[in-house]
Amino acid sequence: MSSLHDAIRPTTFLKPEALSERLGIDLTIATETFQRTGSFKFRAAYNTALNAESDHLITASSGNFGQALALACRLLGKRCHVVMPETSAKVKIDAVRSHGAEVELIDVSKIGREERVDQLVAEFPEAYRASAYDDDHVIEGNSTLGDEIAARADFDAVITPVGGGGLISGISKGLCRANRKAELIGAEPLLGNDAARSLAAGKLIRNEEEPKTIADGARTISLGKRNWEIVRNGVSRIIEVPEDRIREAVVRYFLDVNLKVEPTGALSLGALFGIAEELEGRQVCCIVSGGNVDPKIYAEIISQ
Amino acid sequence: MSSLHDAIRPTTFLKPEALSERLGIDLTIATETFQRTGSFKFRAAYNTALNAESDHLITASSGNFGQALALACRLLGKRCHVVMPETSAKVKIDAVRSHGAEVELIDVSKIGREERVDQLVAEFPEAYRASAYDDDHVIEGNSTLGDEIAARADFDAVITPVGGGGLISGISKGLCRANRKAELIGAEPLLGNDAARSLAAGKLIRNEEEPKTIADGARTISLGKRNWEIVRNGVSRIIEVPEDRIREAVVRYFLDVNLKVEPTGALSLGALFGIAEELEGRQVCCIVSGGNVDPKIYAEIISQ
Repeated sequence: MSSLHDAIRPTTFLKPEALSERLGIDLTIATETFQRTGSFKFRAAYNTALNAESDHLITASSGNFGQALALACRLLGKRCHVVMPETSAKVKIDAVRSHGAEVELIDVSKIGREERVDQLVAEFPEAYRASAYDDDHVIEGNSTLGDEIAARADFDAVITPVGGGGLISGISKGLCRANRKAELIGAEPLLGNDAARSLAAGKLIRNEEEPKTIADGARTISLGKRNWEIVRNGVSRIIEVPEDRIREAVVRYFLDVNLKVEPTGALSLGALFGIAEELEGRQVCCIVSGGNVDPKIYAEIISQ
Repeated sequence: MSSLHDAIRPTTFLKPEALSERLGIDLTIATETFQRTGSFKFRAAYNTALNAESDHLITASSGNFGQALALACRLLGKRCHVVMPETSAKVKIDAVRSHGAEVELIDVSKIGREERVDQLVAEFPEAYRASAYDDDHVIEGNSTLGDEIAARADFDAVITPVGGGGLISGISKGLCRANRKAELIGAEPLLGNDAARSLAAGKLIRNEEEPKTIADGARTISLGKRNWEIVRNGVSRIIEVPEDRIREAVVRYFLDVNLKVEPTGALSLGALFGIAEELEGRQVCCIVSGGNVDPKIYAEIISQ
C-alpha cells in the first residue's frame, strides 16, 4: 500500500512561450492531464480510499472522480460503486469499468445522482459514501497540488477551474500552508455560475438544475459546504466563463501549447482571456484539471 | 546569447499506465511536443544557428525544422529563409512566419526544395545552407535528447521516428556517449521505407519520389550521408509502419495518454505495436518527435 505522496504523480509544469507572448503574461501551466487517470481527481480519490474506514466506497461522479476512485480502490483492494449519468462521456464510463468498479448508470431526469447513492448506501450500510468534493479527505488530497504550485514559484495569481470546489479549496489550503500570497481566482462556466453568485452574495447559492455547459466536470448544483467555507475566505473572485471562451481555450491549448485539454480543464485559461490586460507582465499559473474528453466532442471543438 | 543547454527545454517523460498495461511493456514516453516550437527540431536548429559562421541561414523544411530555425535565428538575431512545399500544414507555415522568417512556398511538382535552396544560395552567397538532418551541428544538437534519455534510465530499447535521420543519429550519439546499451530501433513509414531498405542492403537507398505518408515529417527522399554513417553502425533495425498503424498510434496517445501527437511523432508507438510481444516486460522508451498537426487532419484521425 503506497502513501498518498508515492501514489500520485507530480503535476507537469509547462511554459507556453507563444501563448505567454500573445497574452503579455509570464504564464505557467500546471497540467494534471498526465496525472493517473488523466485528472487531478486521483489525488482526492486516493486519499479518500486510503483513509476511509471501510473496504467499500460508493460515489456519484460525472466521470473523472469515478475513474480516479475506481483506480484508487483497485490499488488499495477495495470495492467501488460509481453512479454516473447515462449521458456521461463514453470514454469516462469505459475507463471507470476498466478499473473494475461497478457502474450504476442513471437517467438524471428520473432520479438524482445523490438519490441513487442514498439507495446504494441503504443497501450497503457498511460502505463509505465518497463525495467528489465535500470531504476533508478530498480537500487534503487536492492540497498536494497546491503544495507543488507553491514550491514551483511565488506566483502573483493562480487560476483554477471550479465545479464543486474540491480543487480550489485544496489549492487554497496548499498555498496557505506555504504562506504564498498569490491571488487565488476561480474559473466557472457562466452557465453554472453558482460559485460566483455565492461569493457575491456572501452565502451558498445553488443552481436550479444541472448546468448544460460543455465543461462537464463543472455540471454541479453548488459548492460543497466544506468547500464553501474555504472559498469564502481564500478566494478573491470567481470569473464566469462563457461557452465560446471555454472552446477558444481548448483550441488555443491545441494550437499554441500542443496540450490536449478537456473543456473543464480549459476554464482557467478561458477566464484568463478576460482579465489578461489587468495581469499584464505578472507571473500567473493556470491549472488544467484534466484531459479526458470524448474524441467526437474534441474533434468538433478544434474543427471550428 | 544563450548556450544550447540553456536555450532548449528538457524533454517531458511520461509513464503511461494504461498503455503500458495494454502492451505488457514498461513503457516510458519521451515527448518533444512541449519543446520550443513544439518539436525536437529546435535542438538541432538552435545549435546550427549558434555555430553557423554566417548571420543568414537558408533551409528547406516540410515545417518543423523551418519553424525551429526561424525561432533560433530570431533569438540569435540572424536572418532566415525557409523553403516550404505549398502543401505543408498551414499551422506550420504560419508558425514559421510568426517567428519573422521569410517563407518561400514552392510547388514541388515544378521545382525541388533543394533546387530552390540552390537558387537562394546563389542569390545570397554569404548565407549558411542549413540541412534539417545532414549536418554535424544538427546531429550534435539532437544528441542532447539522447543525453537526457541516457540519464533517465538504462532502457532495453529506444524507438525513434526516422525521416532524414537527424534525430536517430543524435540519439545514437547521446546513448553511445553515456555507454548505454539500449537497442536503438528506428520507426519509418512503410510508404517511405528508404532507411529500412538501406539498412537491409548495406548501402544508402533513395525513394523515387517524396513519399505520400500522413507522417509529413518523414516525407524525405533518403537519409543524409552523415546520418547514414551513424545509422548503419548504431541502429539495429528499422520498423516499417503502415499508415493505419500511424493513425492508430495517434488515437491511442489521445485516448490513453492525453497526449496530442503529430503523425510523425506517433511512428515510434506505431512500430512498437508490431514488436510488443517480443519486448514484453522490458523497459522501452518511445520518442515522440513533435506535436504540430493541422487541426482538421487531427480531428479526422481521432474521429475514425
